[in-house]
Amino acid sequence: MAEFFVPKLAVVGVGLIGGSFALALKEAGLVGEIVGIGRGRANLETAREKGIIDAFTHSLSEGVAGADVVFLSTPVQTLSKVASEVLPHMKPGAILTDGGSVKAEVIAAIEPMLPADVHFVPGHPVAGTEQSGAAAAFATLYRGRRCILTPTSRTSPDALEKIKYLWQAAGSDVVVMTPEKHDRILAAISHLPHMVAYALVDAVDNCSDENENILNYSAGGFRDFTRIASSDPTMWRDIALSNRAALLEVIEKFEKSLTEVKQDIAAGNSEGLFEFFLRSKQRRDAII
Amino acid sequence: MAEFFVPKLAVVGVGLIGGSFALALKEAGLVGEIVGIGRGRANLETAREKGIIDAFTHSLSEGVAGADVVFLSTPVQTLSKVASEVLPHMKPGAILTDGGSVKAEVIAAIEPMLPADVHFVPGHPVAGTEQSGAAAAFATLYRGRRCILTPTSRTSPDALEKIKYLWQAAGSDVVVMTPEKHDRILAAISHLPHMVAYALVDAVDNCSDENENILNYSAGGFRDFTRIASSDPTMWRDIALSNRAALLEVIEKFEKSLTEVKQDIAAGNSEGLFEFFLRSKQRRDAII
Repeated sequence: MAEFFVPKLAVVGVGLIGGSFALALKEAGLVGEIVGIGRGRANLETAREKGIIDAFTHSLSEGVAGADVVFLSTPVQTLSKVASEVLPHMKPGAILTDGGSVKAEVIAAIEPMLPADVHFVPGHPVAGTEQSGAAAAFATLYRGRRCILTPTSRTSPDALEKIKYLWQAAGSDVVVMTPEKHDRILAAISHLPHMVAYALVDAVDNCSDENENILNYSAGGFRDFTRIASSDPTMWRDIALSNRAALLEVIEKFEKSLTEVKQDIAAGNSEGLFEFFLRSKQRRDAII
Repeated sequence: MAEFFVPKLAVVGVGLIGGSFALALKEAGLVGEIVGIGRGRANLETAREKGIIDAFTHSLSEGVAGADVVFLSTPVQTLSKVASEVLPHMKPGAILTDGGSVKAEVIAAIEPMLPADVHFVPGHPVAGTEQSGAAAAFATLYRGRRCILTPTSRTSPDALEKIKYLWQAAGSDVVVMTPEKHDRILAAISHLPHMVAYALVDAVDNCSDENENILNYSAGGFRDFTRIASSDPTMWRDIALSNRAALLEVIEKFEKSLTEVKQDIAAGNSEGLFEFFLRSKQRRDAII
């Protein structure tokens, strides 16, 4: 498409995700003014000092007034509430988009609230680090990373193209798919591993007795494997509950796979175990 | 104890584990001659070129003749067979020790074969990298890492002290415990995570359909989390089968933990999930 310039961008939640999006668009020369909206004054001041935003406000209605694009990058559980407060104040023709890591539930909550003249393009940049906050934001976070956009039958093709253009300008590899497919894929490659990591740390800790903490014996492998169990419990509770159906489905698939391993071990099925491990190794090696 | 010097050390299986042990003892000035025993000529030549060993042979009986200490560092499933061929040729008073990652089964196989005048000190240096072979060996592999020695009622206290001394000289933090306790701990912190990683890759791959390989969407987090699923299938089949009882027990503990998560998700138990994730995060953070 032709170049899409955003005279005014509003970012709600100027953390790693929102802040990096703002920085990337600024670097690409595709935005005029950027307004940051959030609750924490210190974080917003950091964002302004870092040049992520030009101005900030704690007021959603003031912040989004006159904005051409509004990017919601607050925790997934808050998106529909934030949208409900933002939408009545958006200007005709403006585009609302988000970065939530669960899509179907968020869309189901937001679409019914959409005014006829405001567009909504649901999205999810699959990127992130262990850090958070504006201080952690950087312009190249999205370079070479996937950004999944999940339009519905109500999404304006023109608005979709514009948001796609912005993410591509930020360096992302943009993929368009249905919200349901997005949620199934993310349940498998991201949400399930987090559930497994939390459960693993719990199980190993349950092997400890009053005399000794078994976790003290863990070597590098265990520490690496369970790093994601150090993720934010609030965020993961929210994601798990927002993507409940898809997540339960993959947990059950995983339980089946583990049962196969368990039964092979119990039966001493040497050949079966070897084939199972080899198959997994080959699949794992193929994605390096 | 007083310094323990080893006039002749025989290392059976000169890979990462055996080769690094030899290098560390050489650097500590605690060995005279080191003989490497193995099947692959190229690997043994590499070991000699790197100064890990002074000489090599493909013959177990020749290699261990006259050795004061014989270190078995071949795959865990081969240890009892190798021991059966080595023991008749060891000199009176010599010490056999090993680096197998499962202890009870190995000990049960080896102890009945022990001649009255040969000592056996079962051990397991909890260290390693993704590499293998003599080319990967280095003198500081064991520095600051745990080495678990698992004596039985038949183990000579003097031989135990000597092997402990050598591992400490190699830089290890030596811990002495029963074979059963070792196997329970390793099942939890090492063997279980590997089973989980193999099962996870399998489950996610099972979410793919004929149109699309879902693993192609995996980002850095998934790749890090499943790195151990790239481990050697033969080695992990052998470990799983050698530590069957302890491993099945922790797999069941893990299944219980995962079931708790699953039920909380299904029931929308927000508080329960948050507490579960927070508890795991705190335990995980505590071991960093």
